[in-house]
Amino acid sequence: MLTLYDCLESGNGHKVRLLLSLLGRECRLVLKDIHAGETRTPEFLTLNPDGRIPLLRLEDGTCLAESNAILVWLAEGSSFLPDDRLERARALAWMFWEQYNHEPNVAVARFWAHHPAKCPSQEQLAQKREKGRAALELLDRHLSTRDWLVGGRASVADLCLYSYSSVSEEGGVDRDGLDALNRWLGRIEALPGFIAMEPWSD
Amino acid sequence: MLTLYDCLESGNGHKVRLLLSLLGRECRLVLKDIHAGETRTPEFLTLNPDGRIPLLRLEDGTCLAESNAILVWLAEGSSFLPDDRLERARALAWMFWEQYNHEPNVAVARFWAHHPAKCPSQEQLAQKREKGRAALELLDRHLSTRDWLVGGRASVADLCLYSYSSVSEEGGVDRDGLDALNRWLGRIEALPGFIAMEPWSD
Repeated sequence: MLTLYDCLESGNGHKVRLLLSLLGRECRLVLKDIHAGETRTPEFLTLNPDGRIPLLRLEDGTCLAESNAILVWLAEGSSFLPDDRLERARALAWMFWEQYNHEPNVAVARFWAHHPAKCPSQEQLAQKREKGRAALELLDRHLSTRDWLVGGRASVADLCLYSYSSVSEEGGVDRDGLDALNRWLGRIEALPGFIAMEPWSD
Repeated sequence: MLTLYDCLESGNGHKVRLLLSLLGRECRLVLKDIHAGETRTPEFLTLNPDGRIPLLRLEDGTCLAESNAILVWLAEGSSFLPDDRLERARALAWMFWEQYNHEPNVAVARFWAHHPAKCPSQEQLAQKREKGRAALELLDRHLSTRDWLVGGRASVADLCLYSYSSVSEEGGVDRDGLDALNRWLGRIEALPGFIAMEPWSD
């Protein structure tokens, strides 16, 4: 069976658990407390030298890191990875955009809001919120003329951008007036097998 | 013919030009001055709503953004994209890691070093340099037991991480003592068709 090393606070982890659930695929879950350094132990670093979750351990013991790479690996052969070469590249483009423009703002604002001691300054938090809102507005404009980010059905691009978008307000990044984005969140929540982000537990 | 909108300062752009050259593929190059706002004009934003280069325009006029997605699209069917599902996912994992851990530190330190007015503080520059060096050290450790990042040959993962690594010292991120990394840079530079990053012109 697959094993997922994860932390329930993480939207990067949630993406993977969401796809596993949509695919109806069983997976053993091993929770790691990132605040207690459990992903920086010598043992964990042998599994992932980058010291991060989520990390997927395959049946043969090899490990795959990076949430979006895990999504692609899991989605191969399913409807969640486009067959068409250009559509697949477009899905990847959204996923790279997420890691560069969306996650470092929307997710980091949420992390700092829940862990004020980790927030370097109110000015930097305000910048994260501003850039996070800009990322959500770009998504909203794209979704104003289509139901899914790429092609005619839900793909790894949608799943990858769902998790932190769905809890953006926890970091002070509101979605007021972003109607197309909010409707798209609802479409993902209506997929058979959908699971939500866990409520944050301090 | 393909058209690449690019800026010669950019390592993200260089990755794409490097792969095009290695593949011997012709491409029309259209340079954009990012400092003069040429990627934020209404005309350019219709091509890429994110307002960034590199941007690849295909023969039929459709556009593909995000350097690493462009690499994957171009590499399909060539030796630079692994055939094996797990190796392909591992290559993607390095590419997502690059956009989250390497580029925001190594490339941004270089950008701030060349454009001091854009640098928010010396403290933040020092942090970028420290995290950039840590990223290069992780690469160096991985390369200490193998020639290429994934599998037995050069892949999109190597090309994606080459460009900014090769000019890290311009941003004050040295590669002293990172022998495996420096030898790997040399292996990429020995590939038939290799082209180097352009010297920075202020």
